[in-house]
Amino acid sequence: MSPQVPRIVIVGAGAVGAFYGAILQRAGARVEVVLRSDADLVRERGFVIDSPLGDLSYRPAAVHHSDDAAVPGADVVVCCVKVLPEVDRAALIAPWLGPASSIALIENGLDIEPAVADALPDHPLVSALAFIAVSRSAPGEIEHRAYGHLTLGAWPHGVSAEARSLAELFETGGVDVKCSDSIVRERWAKSLWNTPFNPISVLADGTDTVTLLDTPGGEALARAAMTEVMAVAAADGHPLPANAVDRNIEATRRMPAYRNSMALDYRAGRALEIEAILGNVVARAEALGVAVPRLHTLRTLIAMRAREAAVR
Amino acid sequence: MSPQVPRIVIVGAGAVGAFYGAILQRAGARVEVVLRSDADLVRERGFVIDSPLGDLSYRPAAVHHSDDAAVPGADVVVCCVKVLPEVDRAALIAPWLGPASSIALIENGLDIEPAVADALPDHPLVSALAFIAVSRSAPGEIEHRAYGHLTLGAWPHGVSAEARSLAELFETGGVDVKCSDSIVRERWAKSLWNTPFNPISVLADGTDTVTLLDTPGGEALARAAMTEVMAVAAADGHPLPANAVDRNIEATRRMPAYRNSMALDYRAGRALEIEAILGNVVARAEALGVAVPRLHTLRTLIAMRAREAAVR
Repeated sequence: MSPQVPRIVIVGAGAVGAFYGAILQRAGARVEVVLRSDADLVRERGFVIDSPLGDLSYRPAAVHHSDDAAVPGADVVVCCVKVLPEVDRAALIAPWLGPASSIALIENGLDIEPAVADALPDHPLVSALAFIAVSRSAPGEIEHRAYGHLTLGAWPHGVSAEARSLAELFETGGVDVKCSDSIVRERWAKSLWNTPFNPISVLADGTDTVTLLDTPGGEALARAAMTEVMAVAAADGHPLPANAVDRNIEATRRMPAYRNSMALDYRAGRALEIEAILGNVVARAEALGVAVPRLHTLRTLIAMRAREAAVR
Repeated sequence: MSPQVPRIVIVGAGAVGAFYGAILQRAGARVEVVLRSDADLVRERGFVIDSPLGDLSYRPAAVHHSDDAAVPGADVVVCCVKVLPEVDRAALIAPWLGPASSIALIENGLDIEPAVADALPDHPLVSALAFIAVSRSAPGEIEHRAYGHLTLGAWPHGVSAEARSLAELFETGGVDVKCSDSIVRERWAKSLWNTPFNPISVLADGTDTVTLLDTPGGEALARAAMTEVMAVAAADGHPLPANAVDRNIEATRRMPAYRNSMALDYRAGRALEIEAILGNVVARAEALGVAVPRLHTLRTLIAMRAREAAVR
């Protein structure tokens, strides 16, 4: 990032976007946010962010409503919108770009980059995973409960100058960043947990990790579904450590009962990132000829629920 | 059945029990019913049964509340209660038995006989499957929509004198009966559909057959789960015809959208016969060393939902 004060536009400033906007502004960047809801309120009062890092409340340098005319030429457009089939993220990002803009995605899931990279091929792409517990407690108010570190890299691989600059900015703002030369491998590693646990918790009516693991057959199902993810990752050229399943289960067992973000979305009636978290893994498995009977079953049951809700 | 007018006690006269009680009374039997709810109402007004077979409304020869003192010595005790782990069916049947009584089970599921046969080994046991669409529309009122035929045999196999007599009585009363020398094979054949479709419909929020099959991946899931049932049945010594999956799917496609009984129970908040329909098949698969990843996934998800509902 060449400019002294980089101009960063955060598209989709929900809880995650608002939080990392605070970090970037703390690091000295000019942070603008694009909001669909709460724009007037945030323009007036800024974001109120309660965090173990201290009071991260801030007023962005500019608050845009997503229907406003865009101001192109950001140094970085950071996209934090949910990855949903009905949301064209490239179309949300494009108006803010200039010829020298780079794009960063702070989003969950696997294979979430091509939809943006294919539509906007002339801009360096940084792909990031957020490890954070954060939620919107009220309009304009964010509750940051724990964690916050990022893993990022250039997509599809390598550590670009853009990735390194952005990492430095986040670290200056106060969060740990791991630069990875294989962000795809990192996404597989995170999928190992998310891909089984998120949809299982939804199908179990938004259950928590303890209920999930303690139901007879529950841990066995979680382990077997994780093993399916491992097989797809390996076939995709990203073998995970042999003890990855054990380590994830042990770590989950050490945590108190925990409802993952998809379970919370389900309970709140919000859209679920099923394709990003699960559907893309199943599609990759089918393309690679890897049998994933449990993941396929989960995928299909969630699709049936959505269809049933639509016709009901 | 030796007596001129056999005395038949129907334990659990819900929709199915009330319907077959009507058939047996039409055939000339003395029909007594044991009810948990609606006993006073049925004692006063009898059962009102709307049926394509005509008006099947009837007053049983006696209406007992399940808390009343039992009158032992029935010629046949016909048990139509749901098969649930928390319901001791043998304890419900036993008080009505005499030394010469036989027992008939008109109930869904697989491996549902041992709990009764082991507790009451001195009584000939007839096991029956009902193919019927019938439901309780109001207290004491039953709506018989379609079908009604029975498949029955002695348990564990053969066609006993008791099975034949009961079959004749049902046929005299107006329903078709198939006497089978292998009721276990018949149960496997019925499980082929019920074991996948019932829990899938529940996990898809009580969806119907058309939504289930038309969801992308839905028919594939149904077929794959049915193929797992086929494999367990074959390992259990009851291979089903090679085209059984195709024929079941085609028959389901020919029907209008249909919510199965477990989907209806789920929607009404009633207990689900999960163990009888699915859990016992999974247990049999485990005992025989047959891999059933989809059935196991369905089984575990339903158990998680129940646990989540219990702690919620």
